[in-house]
Amino acid sequence: MNPRIKSLITSFKDHGIDALIVNRDVNIQYLTGFPASESWLLVTSKQSFYITDFRYVLEAEKGLKNIAVVRYEKSMFDAVIKLAAKLNLKNIGFDERYTTYAQYKNFLQKLPKNIKLVGANELVEQLREIKSKEEVSCIRQALKIHREALKVMKKEVKPGISEKQALEKLEIFVKRKGVDFSFSPIIASGPNSCFPHAKVTDRKIKNNEVVLLDFGIDYQGYKSDLTRIFFLGRIPQLIWDVNQKVLTAQQKAIDVIKQGVAANFVDAQARNYLKSHKLDIYFGHSLGHGVGLEIHENPRLSGQSNVILKEGMVVTVEPAVYIPHKFGIRQEEMVLVRKNDCEVLSDNID
Amino acid sequence: MNPRIKSLITSFKDHGIDALIVNRDVNIQYLTGFPASESWLLVTSKQSFYITDFRYVLEAEKGLKNIAVVRYEKSMFDAVIKLAAKLNLKNIGFDERYTTYAQYKNFLQKLPKNIKLVGANELVEQLREIKSKEEVSCIRQALKIHREALKVMKKEVKPGISEKQALEKLEIFVKRKGVDFSFSPIIASGPNSCFPHAKVTDRKIKNNEVVLLDFGIDYQGYKSDLTRIFFLGRIPQLIWDVNQKVLTAQQKAIDVIKQGVAANFVDAQARNYLKSHKLDIYFGHSLGHGVGLEIHENPRLSGQSNVILKEGMVVTVEPAVYIPHKFGIRQEEMVLVRKNDCEVLSDNID
Repeated sequence: MNPRIKSLITSFKDHGIDALIVNRDVNIQYLTGFPASESWLLVTSKQSFYITDFRYVLEAEKGLKNIAVVRYEKSMFDAVIKLAAKLNLKNIGFDERYTTYAQYKNFLQKLPKNIKLVGANELVEQLREIKSKEEVSCIRQALKIHREALKVMKKEVKPGISEKQALEKLEIFVKRKGVDFSFSPIIASGPNSCFPHAKVTDRKIKNNEVVLLDFGIDYQGYKSDLTRIFFLGRIPQLIWDVNQKVLTAQQKAIDVIKQGVAANFVDAQARNYLKSHKLDIYFGHSLGHGVGLEIHENPRLSGQSNVILKEGMVVTVEPAVYIPHKFGIRQEEMVLVRKNDCEVLSDNID
Repeated sequence: MNPRIKSLITSFKDHGIDALIVNRDVNIQYLTGFPASESWLLVTSKQSFYITDFRYVLEAEKGLKNIAVVRYEKSMFDAVIKLAAKLNLKNIGFDERYTTYAQYKNFLQKLPKNIKLVGANELVEQLREIKSKEEVSCIRQALKIHREALKVMKKEVKPGISEKQALEKLEIFVKRKGVDFSFSPIIASGPNSCFPHAKVTDRKIKNNEVVLLDFGIDYQGYKSDLTRIFFLGRIPQLIWDVNQKVLTAQQKAIDVIKQGVAANFVDAQARNYLKSHKLDIYFGHSLGHGVGLEIHENPRLSGQSNVILKEGMVVTVEPAVYIPHKFGIRQEEMVLVRKNDCEVLSDNID
C-alpha cells in the first residue's frame, strides 16, 4: 500500500468510518499518481478500488498499481454498494463538500439499511496541505520557469502594445518551455488593474502607468502563482506610496509565518497595517491560499481561518489595494512554512 | 426583463417556487450575457439579483443590465436569506444536482422556518436545450473554422510525426484564428485509438494505420465537437469493414432524428445495427449528447434517456467500435433537430 493511502487510512478512526469514497480527480491523482477522470476511488483499510466505466478501464489497468480496477455498469453508487456488501463495510465516509445533494439523496435511497453514510470532509485535502520534499521541488521548478517568464515579460511589456499582445508573448514563451499555465493569466494595465480578477483586454498599455501581471506555471501538476507590478515611465506619487504600503503589509505577514501560527493572525498583520493607513477598505479579499496540485487549496490565510500553520505548507501572501476606477496594486509571493520561520520560495523573482 | 429570464420564470409555477437560485456560471451567462464567476443569480418573478463578492462588483455593475448587483459580506446564503425576507419569498428553488450536500445543510440551518428550500433541477439547462437561430449560427461559425482546421490537418498528419507534433500544428492554426478549443483535443494513432478518451502521446504516427481526431472549436462560447478518422497508407480490411459498419450505424441513427422521437430510440438504431454485426460489445458509451455553451449538455442520446427530441436541439451522433489493444473507430457528426427531419450541421466536413 502506498504511503499516502496509508496516511489517509489512519484518519478513518477519528471519523468513525471503515471506508471512504474519494470522488475528486485531483485527490485520486494525489493518492494514486494516476491522472484520474470520471472515476471514484473507494479506499478501505485493506484495499483500494478504482471505480470507472468502460471508457477508462484499459488505461486505468495500465496505470494503476496495487489498486483494483472495477468497471461499473449502472452507476458508481451501485459499484460501491456491491463492494460494501462484499467487504462487509458498515460506515462509508463521503465528502459533503464534493457530493451533490442529488447524489446524496440517490445514494441514500439505494443503500441497504445496515450501511451508513458518514460525512467525512476534506480528508485528502488535509494530507495535501503538507508538501513533501518532492512536491516542493516541483513547485520550485515551476517558479524557476516563472522567473524566466518574468524576465521575458520585462522586455516585452512596453507602452504601445495591448494587454492581449503582451499575453501572446507570454503564451509563446510558456509553449516553448513545454509547460502550461496554472490558471488563465491576468495582464491588467492602468485602471484595469483595479479589478482583482481582470480580464485581458485589447487596451493598449500606456506610459506612466502600472501593469499588473498575475499568472502561474504548472510543472508536473504543481503550480506557481505570483503577482508582479511593472511600473512604466513616471509613476504618480500616490501609486508609489500605495505600492510601498502593500509591500510593507506583505513583509509584516511574512515575518510572522512559521509553524504553530494561526492563519488569521497572519492575515491580520497585513490587514492591520493597511488599516493604520486607511487602506484596508480597498483590500477586499483574503491574504493568501495554499498552492499545490490546485491553484487554490488549503490552508486559506483569511480572517475567518483559524487553521494553525504547519511545516511543509506552501501558501501565497498577496495583500492588495484596489482604488476603484483608478488603479490596483497586488503583490504576491509564495512561501514555504518552516519550523521557526518561512522561506520565500519566490525570492529573487522580479 | 430579458426573454430568457422571462421563459425561466414561466417554469416556476410547475415547481411550486417563487424564486430560483442559479449557481452555475454557464447558466448565469446564458440568462444574463455576463461572463459570471463566483456568483449566484437569484431570479424572482419580479426582479433578478446578481450576488457576488467585493472582487467582482465593479465588473458586474458594468456588465449587467436590469439586474441588481448585490455584494455579499459573509456568504451568498446570507445574501439570499436577506433578500428572501425583504421580498417575502416563501419557496426558493435550488438545483439538487449542482448544490453540494454541505451547502444544503448549511443553508437549511440558517434559513428561517417560514421559508422553504425546494429541489428544482436543471430548469435553465432545459431552456438551453433548444437553440435559438443566433445560437445555431454561432455553432455554424465554430464548425466553419473546424472545417478549415481539418483541411490543415489533412496535410499535416503524416507518417513520421508524433501525435503531439500533430497537435501542435492544430494548436497553431486555432491560435491564428483567434479562437479556443472547446475541449482538450484527442489525436490518437494506431492502437491508441482504442481508448475512447485517449491522451495525446509522443507516439510516432505510422503508415497503414488510422489516426483518430476528436476536437472542437469554441466560437463566442458555442462549441463544435466532431471526430474524424484519417486513414494512412493501406488499411487492413478489418478496419475498413468496421469503419463501414460504424458509418452505417451513424446513418441509421441520423435517419430517424426529428422532433417527437425519443433519444433512446435514436441510440437503439445505431446500437442494434452494430449488434447485428456483433460489434455492440465494443461500443460502451452512449450515442451522443447536446452541444452548446457546454461541450456536453442535455439532451443525452443514450439507452437510458427517454427525452423526446425537439426542434432546435443540437446533438452529436457518435457511434464507435473500440477493439482493445488494436484500434478504435468513432465517427461523430453534429445535427440540428428539425420538425420533420434533421440537418447534419457538419456535412461536407471531412
